[in-house]
Amino acid sequence: MARAMFEPVYKEIFPFWDKINEQDKDDICRGSLAVTYKKGTTIHDGSECSGVILVRTGCLRVYIMSDEGKDVTLYRLHEGDICVLSASCVLDTLTFDVFVDAEVDSECYLVPGCAYAAASEHNKEIKIYTLETAVSRFSDVMWVMQQILFMSMDKRLAIFLCDESSRIASDVIELTHEQIARYMGSAREVVSRMLKYFASEGLVEVSRKGVKILDKRALKALAM
Amino acid sequence: MARAMFEPVYKEIFPFWDKINEQDKDDICRGSLAVTYKKGTTIHDGSECSGVILVRTGCLRVYIMSDEGKDVTLYRLHEGDICVLSASCVLDTLTFDVFVDAEVDSECYLVPGCAYAAASEHNKEIKIYTLETAVSRFSDVMWVMQQILFMSMDKRLAIFLCDESSRIASDVIELTHEQIARYMGSAREVVSRMLKYFASEGLVEVSRKGVKILDKRALKALAM
Repeated sequence: MARAMFEPVYKEIFPFWDKINEQDKDDICRGSLAVTYKKGTTIHDGSECSGVILVRTGCLRVYIMSDEGKDVTLYRLHEGDICVLSASCVLDTLTFDVFVDAEVDSECYLVPGCAYAAASEHNKEIKIYTLETAVSRFSDVMWVMQQILFMSMDKRLAIFLCDESSRIASDVIELTHEQIARYMGSAREVVSRMLKYFASEGLVEVSRKGVKILDKRALKALAM
Repeated sequence: MARAMFEPVYKEIFPFWDKINEQDKDDICRGSLAVTYKKGTTIHDGSECSGVILVRTGCLRVYIMSDEGKDVTLYRLHEGDICVLSASCVLDTLTFDVFVDAEVDSECYLVPGCAYAAASEHNKEIKIYTLETAVSRFSDVMWVMQQILFMSMDKRLAIFLCDESSRIASDVIELTHEQIARYMGSAREVVSRMLKYFASEGLVEVSRKGVKILDKRALKALAM
């Protein structure tokens, strides 16, 4: 029954699915859970292995947090994406903690660490897939790090607005300055100041609802 | 002949060595190079695959660099360490560029990307080892990122001085403020200011030769 539910999705998402044996397929499906997380829920807080999370609908935010509660977004996961950094028991060379929140109501399939680790123990294909997914997240994180360390704020904000606008296919970005700052690993004051500057240049219009892009071409040029 | 030279070292360093076939061992050894890099040489500049670098003696610095030439150290490699981030042709999920410099005169064994990639193509053990090494570097980099983003400068500098002092087994750290700043991904001015403060507190003595630790206990307490 579990298999009938999860297998069609796993077959599509996991490139290793057709290479593992029936018993492992059974075990992974039998251990799997379908969970709906309400917007704002912390799904993983770094303290223990939460297993592998597959996003069916919605959006998860993966971030790191300081002792003082300052957080920096590493990346977001959308439909069809997999979170493996939450599965520390599968990746024992991974020694840092991340947090994962549901950014909107999100339906997920959860493969608990123990079932996944057991299958990956005797299936090198699973291990390779998991490690490769982690390494590709490494690339994402390096990009964020380079942005934060090296890039000027105007360029970073322009990139964020352009990316977000094409992702949601709208020129109106309904996020508060606080939220934008959080995505960018910056401070609200810094974002507000830069948005005010962008507005004065006629690039955007800032309102209570969020940010409306007025001159996409100029914003894209800034983002280059 | 190549095999007689490289195999004893590879056998010790690569956990996959005993699991791969003779042909692959031959190919890897035959493709291998013993290279001595002079202090300051850029070994890898991110532009193309330099293969896998094994440090025999000396020290390599792995860093990222902005368009403007600002650089941030990710980690350093010492005797027996392996650099896989320089082997982009082996790790195709790795999409960011790092730079690698010889920090002192360093003897290295170099396994060119093509030989290593070919062997790793039909040896999952090699692939897993390479990916695991990359993921463990991911952990190092996250640590650096958290330091830079979240930690106060006094704590970071205290940690650096304590770590460096135990690594070289000496209380005298013969590095310029510029060099320390570079290791820490900070600016020389910031490091100089903080060292002056540390000196005024009696923690260190700053001279032309470098930094001498006077009160290790207090410095360690600061680093906690």
